[in-house]
Amino acid sequence: MKKIINHVDHIVEEMLQGVAHAHNDLVHRVGQTRVIARNYEGKGKVGIISGGGSGHEPSHGGFVGQGMLSAAVAGDVFTSPTPDMVLDGIKAANKGAGVFLVIKNYTGDVLNFEMAKDMASMEGIDVEYCITDDDIAVEDSLYTAGRRGVGGTVLVHKILGANAERGASLRELKALSEKLLPEIKTLGLALHAATVPAAGKPGFELKEDEIEFGIGIHNEPGYRKAQLRSSAEMAKEFYDRLKSAYPLKSGDKLAVLVNGMGSTPLMELYIFANDVYKLLKADGILVEYSKVGNYMTSIDMAGLSLTFLRLSNGQYLKDLREPAHTIAW
Amino acid sequence: MKKIINHVDHIVEEMLQGVAHAHNDLVHRVGQTRVIARNYEGKGKVGIISGGGSGHEPSHGGFVGQGMLSAAVAGDVFTSPTPDMVLDGIKAANKGAGVFLVIKNYTGDVLNFEMAKDMASMEGIDVEYCITDDDIAVEDSLYTAGRRGVGGTVLVHKILGANAERGASLRELKALSEKLLPEIKTLGLALHAATVPAAGKPGFELKEDEIEFGIGIHNEPGYRKAQLRSSAEMAKEFYDRLKSAYPLKSGDKLAVLVNGMGSTPLMELYIFANDVYKLLKADGILVEYSKVGNYMTSIDMAGLSLTFLRLSNGQYLKDLREPAHTIAW
Repeated sequence: MKKIINHVDHIVEEMLQGVAHAHNDLVHRVGQTRVIARNYEGKGKVGIISGGGSGHEPSHGGFVGQGMLSAAVAGDVFTSPTPDMVLDGIKAANKGAGVFLVIKNYTGDVLNFEMAKDMASMEGIDVEYCITDDDIAVEDSLYTAGRRGVGGTVLVHKILGANAERGASLRELKALSEKLLPEIKTLGLALHAATVPAAGKPGFELKEDEIEFGIGIHNEPGYRKAQLRSSAEMAKEFYDRLKSAYPLKSGDKLAVLVNGMGSTPLMELYIFANDVYKLLKADGILVEYSKVGNYMTSIDMAGLSLTFLRLSNGQYLKDLREPAHTIAW
Repeated sequence: MKKIINHVDHIVEEMLQGVAHAHNDLVHRVGQTRVIARNYEGKGKVGIISGGGSGHEPSHGGFVGQGMLSAAVAGDVFTSPTPDMVLDGIKAANKGAGVFLVIKNYTGDVLNFEMAKDMASMEGIDVEYCITDDDIAVEDSLYTAGRRGVGGTVLVHKILGANAERGASLRELKALSEKLLPEIKTLGLALHAATVPAAGKPGFELKEDEIEFGIGIHNEPGYRKAQLRSSAEMAKEFYDRLKSAYPLKSGDKLAVLVNGMGSTPLMELYIFANDVYKLLKADGILVEYSKVGNYMTSIDMAGLSLTFLRLSNGQYLKDLREPAHTIAW
């Protein structure tokens, strides 16, 4: 394993120190906790927090800032933060109007965030939440009952964050999330697995000419191993599945996120994005908003994910375009 | 070679199409040229352009936008753009007050950008330029006489861009660049070489427990191969060299850029940054501005570079903090 680290047990601690030092104009670490919180106060507004295991950087600390998340909680690598850690986040994010949790659908995350919600309630903090499950590759997985929450989660951060910034209440954010989540669908693929530092080797093996469609962001298996093929063919594979999952039709409007898994160069992400845009154009589906880059990674996995958000509500696009003052949006 | 591409000959073309489509709110491609130009007009202001071979994404197209570059020119992978391509960029960037070129010090780039300057002069466009050579690892290299221009170049884009936005003249930008460039110094290291798509294999070999200090952004050799070691030890190696190259002293103020080479996760960049901050703090040197992420990559190289900019002029910090509306700053 070749990594630029010190001791594997200190990775999250040192990373949090690095983030807090590098971006002290935008965020701070809350004491010695696992929480990165924004400097912008947002008094009287609902706080939005997200988090989960580390290894998905810039998620989630990179999206903390005015107009997006109030705080992010970082568990150990690929491991849910404990309820205590999440409670620290809730307390940091609470500015008097309650706190909304964006949870990715993994059994450990759901359990621990829900437990933190109960603990916060006992301290008089009003908490609501949503569970993202945008990955349409498989039902049930290594760490998940139902569908996994993956890259599309960052679009939830952005849209809920814009609404919270405008003063939406906890109940309004809950209602918004219920309409928004079904419009977000994602598929991911890997050319090479992620190496969890404590494990010291890739989480699964792929041959030199092999890729895997439908993998998760913690090395979870996908729906098919396949021969390495062109970007256009990979794009077609995902496009067809995403299109029929809605189904999409001519005239529909989309936000499109092409997300790198950690070690895939932007060069490849833009080539793939270009192939996706061509397929959409041929079907008369309109791309109103695009993001291309590393948003929800899987340590050093080579690969990408493709997320569509159907803009069924004109407000979603406005919310995406609102300014956000974060490290990585 | 495992890459998400179509034909190796179409990489730059398809990437430019992808960039232009994804970010049509900020930039556009100029006809069928190799130029990405900003939508913001900047009438009557000096245009700033940069460019070079492709494979360094988000450089340089990712830094096109209000407050930074006016246009970027993309050559083939690791190959200087031709004078014609650069001339297209100059024409796109010219809004009546002349055009300033930021050239990285590679023999091909210098030759072709200077030729384009002469061609532009014959068409009545006033052009000035600077040549960045921030890499202190080696004197002369595979493609360079003198020192190589590497990651620190993006800080030049940002500072000159902020000045051009405020209305600085071509001569003022030239004078500014002459003071600024000697304050910027960089060192890079690799854990794994970049694979140029047309070559199909890594540009050099490193053993499983080996790294190379001082490499360039086109697989150019560094100053020493060494045993894999901790992030703290890598940071110390570069810190000592950078510190003595100025030399830095207690009370000095710095901007610090920790730049990923393409396939290195943010997790590792932040751990390394944290180690650098500790060394600086121990010596009483102040970090006034930080960037951590992929800014000047080398396709899929694993590794990073560390850039210091000594803030010998208080205005540099203000210029770095000015807003820039680009894809990747």
